Amino acid sequence: MPKIEVCLSPELLPLFKLEDKIVVVIDVLRASSCMVTGLAHGISEILPVATLEESATYGLMGYITAAERDGMKMEGFDLDNSPFSYMDAVLIGKKICMTTTNGTQAILMSSSARKVVIGTFLNLKTVTDYLYIRGLNVVLLCAGWKGQVNAEDTLFAGAVMSTLNNSFSVGNDSALLARDLFGLHKDHMEEFLIESSHFNRLKRLGIHKDIAFCLQSSVYECLPRLENNVIVAQGQS
Amino acid sequence: MPKIEVCLSPELLPLFKLEDKIVVVIDVLRASSCMVTGLAHGISEILPVATLEESATYGLMGYITAAERDGMKMEGFDLDNSPFSYMDAVLIGKKICMTTTNGTQAILMSSSARKVVIGTFLNLKTVTDYLYIRGLNVVLLCAGWKGQVNAEDTLFAGAVMSTLNNSFSVGNDSALLARDLFGLHKDHMEEFLIESSHFNRLKRLGIHKDIAFCLQSSVYECLPRLENNVIVAQGQS
Repeated sequence: MPKIEVCLSPELLPLFKLEDKIVVVIDVLRASSCMVTGLAHGISEILPVATLEESATYGLMGYITAAERDGMKMEGFDLDNSPFSYMDAVLIGKKICMTTTNGTQAILMSSSARKVVIGTFLNLKTVTDYLYIRGLNVVLLCAGWKGQVNAEDTLFAGAVMSTLNNSFSVGNDSALLARDLFGLHKDHMEEFLIESSHFNRLKRLGIHKDIAFCLQSSVYECLPRLENNVIVAQGQS
Repeated sequence: MPKIEVCLSPELLPLFKLEDKIVVVIDVLRASSCMVTGLAHGISEILPVATLEESATYGLMGYITAAERDGMKMEGFDLDNSPFSYMDAVLIGKKICMTTTNGTQAILMSSSARKVVIGTFLNLKTVTDYLYIRGLNVVLLCAGWKGQVNAEDTLFAGAVMSTLNNSFSVGNDSALLARDLFGLHKDHMEEFLIESSHFNRLKRLGIHKDIAFCLQSSVYECLPRLENNVIVAQGQS
């Protein structure tokens, strides 16, 4: 039986062997939710980069630029880190270059894995169907917040664990923690997250609407995957 | 209101500011349980060291040596890492030099804190009374297993969170996770831990009895604290 391990912070990723595993990168609020939404709405590809400078350079090469730090859009870039910004019809067929505080960094750290895909509540069923069919060992990588463990990414890791409970073994104790946390809060996730650090961070920035959107389950069938350092929708060439 | 943060792995400790905080080092299975048991039974002090070589050197200087790696006693040293070994009357008044896979390393990493104390279920009430009376910000440092998060240390962090719920604020999301995990499993911790990695590691080594012992709540009133790089019982000069 293949196993699922949960990595609760990118700071812990060096402890995991990624070769021959599928890594699911999770940044529920909000990078991975933006990626799923954008690709589902017709964006052609998303290039994750580490720095604002790289993003600006790609902007000069014709990319639409998305840049977030500390929850806020950076001045001089095109898009913020709200999933609603990724639904705009003018973005259909466009290439996005994206840098965020946590999510894009986590993706860049995972590139040695056999496959890297992007998971969030918005594509939960698509992600779990994919993992089930592939049947490989899995690492669920929570992007967290500047290295700190966060509640919402752990919840999503738990949602994956719960869904695949009968087909995968529990690979480490973090997977147990995530599974139980999700089991406890699945019917009232938003109330639970009211206590969490990132919820309060985002609420202070006035984007409560994003949170409600990002907690919806299986809205899109899109599976973003990393292919030659670029994120494209599964099945897309 | 002071706050409690939980650090789920020593690998994440660089993300925390320790100055002016009390750090509670937690290695339920089994270093912190051994320390509490040993000091409660009359051991005079415990010197935590990082390496087997250092422990051997202190052995030549008259210390009783305790050395564990991967759950097993290292050959040539006096004590293993079982709390039952720390009850022996021949150890009364003796100095122990101790090195373990996780717990002693976590203590050594915490030395910049205002106070470092040792917590485990065996002295839960004493630890929480102490934190309540001091009223300072707290970091609960889970020693984990070679950097990986573990279930039993997280459970104990959650027990502290639950006990002090009305007097301290939740300092980070890991504290939420720990609190909820303990709330879910407090009445059947051993059954829960059967699924965990370290439980299975220790069971394979035939020391199930230690686990049952280490999960007992508030058996001892001893509060081990770090003082000039040595662990002594609170109140001891």
